[in-house]
Amino acid sequence: MTSETDATTDSASTSTDGVSADAAAGGLSSRHPNFGRITAGDAGDSALAAALQKVLDGAWSESRAETRAALTPELLNPLGLTMEEQRDHTLEQLQRLADSGMPKLGFRAEDGGTGDTGAALTSFEMLGHLDLSVMVKAGVQWGLFGGAIANLGDDATRQKYLPDVMSLKLLGCFAMTEIGQGSDVQNLETTATFDNATGEFVVNTPTPSAEKAYIGNAGRDGRLAATFAQLITIEDGEEQHHGVHCLLVPIRDEAGNTLPGVTTTDHGHKGGLLGVDNGRIWFDNVRVPREALLNRFGSVDEQGRYSSPIESVGARFFTMLGTLIRGRVSVGAASGASARTALALAVRYALVRRQFEHPETGRGIPLLEYREHQRRLMPRVARAYAYACAQNAIVAELAEFEKDPDAFDEVRRREMETHAAGIKATVTAFANDTLTEARLACGGAGFMAENMLTEMRKDCDVFSTFEGDNVVLTQLVGKELMGAYAAEFGNMDQLETVGFAINTVADVVQEKVRASTLWQKVVDAVTDREHTDFLDRGNQLEILVDREEHLLETVARRLRKAQGEDASAAFKVFNSAQDHLLAAGRAHMDSWVFARFAEAVDECEDPEAKKLLGTLCDLYVLDIIDGDKGWFLEHNRLTTERTKAATAAYNRLCTKLAGQARTLVDGFAVPEFVFAVPMLNGGGVDKPGEPAGL
Amino acid sequence: MTSETDATTDSASTSTDGVSADAAAGGLSSRHPNFGRITAGDAGDSALAAALQKVLDGAWSESRAETRAALTPELLNPLGLTMEEQRDHTLEQLQRLADSGMPKLGFRAEDGGTGDTGAALTSFEMLGHLDLSVMVKAGVQWGLFGGAIANLGDDATRQKYLPDVMSLKLLGCFAMTEIGQGSDVQNLETTATFDNATGEFVVNTPTPSAEKAYIGNAGRDGRLAATFAQLITIEDGEEQHHGVHCLLVPIRDEAGNTLPGVTTTDHGHKGGLLGVDNGRIWFDNVRVPREALLNRFGSVDEQGRYSSPIESVGARFFTMLGTLIRGRVSVGAASGASARTALALAVRYALVRRQFEHPETGRGIPLLEYREHQRRLMPRVARAYAYACAQNAIVAELAEFEKDPDAFDEVRRREMETHAAGIKATVTAFANDTLTEARLACGGAGFMAENMLTEMRKDCDVFSTFEGDNVVLTQLVGKELMGAYAAEFGNMDQLETVGFAINTVADVVQEKVRASTLWQKVVDAVTDREHTDFLDRGNQLEILVDREEHLLETVARRLRKAQGEDASAAFKVFNSAQDHLLAAGRAHMDSWVFARFAEAVDECEDPEAKKLLGTLCDLYVLDIIDGDKGWFLEHNRLTTERTKAATAAYNRLCTKLAGQARTLVDGFAVPEFVFAVPMLNGGGVDKPGEPAGL
Repeated sequence: MTSETDATTDSASTSTDGVSADAAAGGLSSRHPNFGRITAGDAGDSALAAALQKVLDGAWSESRAETRAALTPELLNPLGLTMEEQRDHTLEQLQRLADSGMPKLGFRAEDGGTGDTGAALTSFEMLGHLDLSVMVKAGVQWGLFGGAIANLGDDATRQKYLPDVMSLKLLGCFAMTEIGQGSDVQNLETTATFDNATGEFVVNTPTPSAEKAYIGNAGRDGRLAATFAQLITIEDGEEQHHGVHCLLVPIRDEAGNTLPGVTTTDHGHKGGLLGVDNGRIWFDNVRVPREALLNRFGSVDEQGRYSSPIESVGARFFTMLGTLIRGRVSVGAASGASARTALALAVRYALVRRQFEHPETGRGIPLLEYREHQRRLMPRVARAYAYACAQNAIVAELAEFEKDPDAFDEVRRREMETHAAGIKATVTAFANDTLTEARLACGGAGFMAENMLTEMRKDCDVFSTFEGDNVVLTQLVGKELMGAYAAEFGNMDQLETVGFAINTVADVVQEKVRASTLWQKVVDAVTDREHTDFLDRGNQLEILVDREEHLLETVARRLRKAQGEDASAAFKVFNSAQDHLLAAGRAHMDSWVFARFAEAVDECEDPEAKKLLGTLCDLYVLDIIDGDKGWFLEHNRLTTERTKAATAAYNRLCTKLAGQARTLVDGFAVPEFVFAVPMLNGGGVDKPGEPAGL
Repeated sequence: MTSETDATTDSASTSTDGVSADAAAGGLSSRHPNFGRITAGDAGDSALAAALQKVLDGAWSESRAETRAALTPELLNPLGLTMEEQRDHTLEQLQRLADSGMPKLGFRAEDGGTGDTGAALTSFEMLGHLDLSVMVKAGVQWGLFGGAIANLGDDATRQKYLPDVMSLKLLGCFAMTEIGQGSDVQNLETTATFDNATGEFVVNTPTPSAEKAYIGNAGRDGRLAATFAQLITIEDGEEQHHGVHCLLVPIRDEAGNTLPGVTTTDHGHKGGLLGVDNGRIWFDNVRVPREALLNRFGSVDEQGRYSSPIESVGARFFTMLGTLIRGRVSVGAASGASARTALALAVRYALVRRQFEHPETGRGIPLLEYREHQRRLMPRVARAYAYACAQNAIVAELAEFEKDPDAFDEVRRREMETHAAGIKATVTAFANDTLTEARLACGGAGFMAENMLTEMRKDCDVFSTFEGDNVVLTQLVGKELMGAYAAEFGNMDQLETVGFAINTVADVVQEKVRASTLWQKVVDAVTDREHTDFLDRGNQLEILVDREEHLLETVARRLRKAQGEDASAAFKVFNSAQDHLLAAGRAHMDSWVFARFAEAVDECEDPEAKKLLGTLCDLYVLDIIDGDKGWFLEHNRLTTERTKAATAAYNRLCTKLAGQARTLVDGFAVPEFVFAVPMLNGGGVDKPGEPAGL
């Protein structure tokens, strides 16, 4: 998008909703009202920043404050350590967290925890501001490994293990991923066969592709592995397959020696996260007692008879996968925090770093004075706010679910799962894009490890892959939007989804999307539904929902062509529409995030902060419209005059928000010690106390 | 872009120019002709790959073959070394290159070289397939440091130093960048003041922002620094400032001890390129003899009188900057090679890695069978071909210039410089995007350092910043397009450019763009100018040139508003059009690259390779149209029916080319030992000899 229409199209500036019309009207001197103002000193508006922070801190602001106070420079990315040194360092930090009691937040009181899911998730999120190795190793230990025991284990098992899990006396693995089944965990190949003669399970890696791979804590520190395997019993002499279950399999003794029948190798150097010891695990007919099975959703009695409260193998599997939701929510949250840190670093740098002399004053021009620099950073600041609010909403939903699962019908639960998957894909992609752009925006200084951006980027990279590959998760959102409204909720594979879509999607989507009470609230807030201004909240909602609906309806229409075709042809239909389905998934997340952000803006009690957040929300929407301008024009949703007006408004908002950039990133409440980086404290940039401005 | 129109819009398929109409016509079974074919074995078509390789190897195919034969696994990224170990390793590899005589290619015969610029540049380019630390340290030593001496030094200086530079007996620095002047080198602050009393230059770092920063070889290995400084003489008791010049300043003795008056520090860990010892340098009134000045474009006699063959300070500076062209060309070339390596790794992986079972065969589906995966990789393969051809063209131009500078008038020389800057920005951005996408496309395996993608990505990162920040270089292209046609070629700053643009741009751009004989050749090849098909080469040219012209004309019109305004207001005009100017610069590079690719296709003698390259060229153009669809619609350049047809054609070409993906990446001729990575040789993927296909 270019702003060639900037000077000629002002239709968007007539809004009274956050953009002053003078920004675009009049002569040259008034076109850029913030020119020369964006460097008005080192400090932002601290009261306003505090009000913004309050919105982002959300419902768990108290536990955030506690965690924030507990964060220390030891939790920053260490530089220049060898891999083993960094692993030691990471383990030390984990022990400090364990000693602080923070992990207990994630466990129920009856398990020795303090039982506050929301507080646990927001605390973990804040680790994302700092060294992601610590966040990931903590997530593996307490979220995945501990979470599997807490959610799938019976009372005895939980009491046996969880205290040591929380205290870090027992380090463990979440051994789900296999090298041959990265995204297709339902078809993983590891087996756990019940031996009726001995009353034990025999855990085995039957093929090379069944190797457990990329498993955190498996390289070095893990002692016990929550191992996902196909559960098999022998009943009446015949193998009975019950689908994927989880068993606790010891892999190392206390001294760290691998146990008989278990083979592990260390993945060694990775693209990042050097503090996490990822490794592979193979099982050669390893025997574990019957109690090793985490039996909440499936158990085997002494006679080797299997029983489960859930009949369908598929439904059972997806229920067990529920343990992954926390992981996905945490990963999205932490990567969002990482992105906010990067933006705070890059914005602060852009306010003190000068390049090229101003023709009149002869002083260097701060980077953020340049339009392109504003366009690189400010829309990402807006998205960072939007995603933080959306993340808070999914945390609240998950906390409510964990407190009272019965309050959730299947539709609400699946919606939560879908949005947990979607927000993970959305925010991790955003974070990696933002970390890259922030690094570039800081030039050579950005490439120096001491300034942290490259280290954060390396660590965040794999967030797009683990806990569900982003493409697979986005596709899941698209499929759920078509399939989640069906009466049955079992194992719906691609073909079933197609079959379902054929009959029902087009009819229900529109109704479904609009029926949400959350949506309705935003719609109700619209005072003038005829208003077509881009800065009108109701019109923004219409634009985004309309795009989502159209994409869903049209993809459903395409999939309908598979009706009556054989499986192979049906797959082709599905595959040829894959990009379309992904676009629908992304469009849904765009509008879902928008709604969450709009709600947060609406609920903000500080008038000045509310106004500023409103402008950020406008820029968030304009950034989406800008990025998909071709679609809106191609589908006659917007005229060329409207898209040109959107471009003009986009640029104006970037400049306007750049004028409050420091306050906006101060609202992220990144621990101040993060900014002790050399690029913000030395040569070639403004010194503290140096007169600001041009 | 989504392919929702895929099944309904077939207008693009009527072309006879590379896309068979059957791809889109007919029923389901024929819609995806390559389905199930893309995994037809591990091997590509080796004869066809060789024909493709011949096109990419270009004019210096012999020296490429020699370099290719000399590349060994020692030149791969080392894993898990400490920084010091990796520096030692890199230096060893450099010594091997020196011993092989390769660096001599870049130096003239009279200086002890073998004098083949094209061969030198293509050899360096091939280092880009492997460890970029080696490529960068080689570039610092022989390209920048050696190049400065070769291009700016007199006979005695060249004879004194260049043999040792080539042999690596003398390691040196190219000390241009200062911490306060990253992109604004004309205003760097280091001074070299001639002391009439002693006949020496006094080199000094007068301010903190004059610190030489990010300098390769300055951290550890460098002994002599080609130091850029403001040259000052005292004539008749008054300081005379002559602008930036280059002097050779010793910084360390042979044992590696820093010399008196010189301070260096080591930048230590960076985001990548750990094998290169970047550092900072400060000079405290360091005295060097009069001969230390590289005096080709400016000298000081024994009486302290300055003289230069170029009168204008600005023109002199830009002439000296000519030494940077090689660096920019090399950086673009090497990053392109890195991207080709990444694509070859990702494509090979996508052909053997399977995920989710096919509903009919029950076998896993190779990743490249998925539409989204095709869309991730194939347009980037097309761009990789396009950029390689464009890179060859700029190398040929630079080689011709270095052979016979007098054959170049100012316009042609500045065009070459502009395209060197533009291709650097274009290809380094492409390479980083492609390395990221290739890493993601390989999932968890992509994140393991052993599979190289993360290591390449880390190292290539800073290519977007050094040798000219990509935003600054792209802006330079835009400014040159408006300014390069002026009669004067001195120091044209932003305001002068604006002033010039006001009067002349709109008139000359159109003529200029069309006048090129290279363009004309493509235009002449068009048989039917009325043909509006996307796959018609002439129509493609029209689409791209028209966009470029429109962007240039409109940005010129905006800049015209600065006329009569004061300097501050004029800067505002310029700044508010910055994104527009950048878009114009990018559009120019798109069409310039297109023309170079189209020429290479046209000149290909192998009919099968020519046809395949033609399809790649089509996809390259469709990828541009897709990425800027909003612009084409907004400016009524394409109707919505046309953009939908473009989308359909885009998807069809991705699938079609995926069917020959292995052959296409084999055409890159990446050394086969690169593919000895674990992810292509082990668990979870097809084993060699395993039956291919579904």
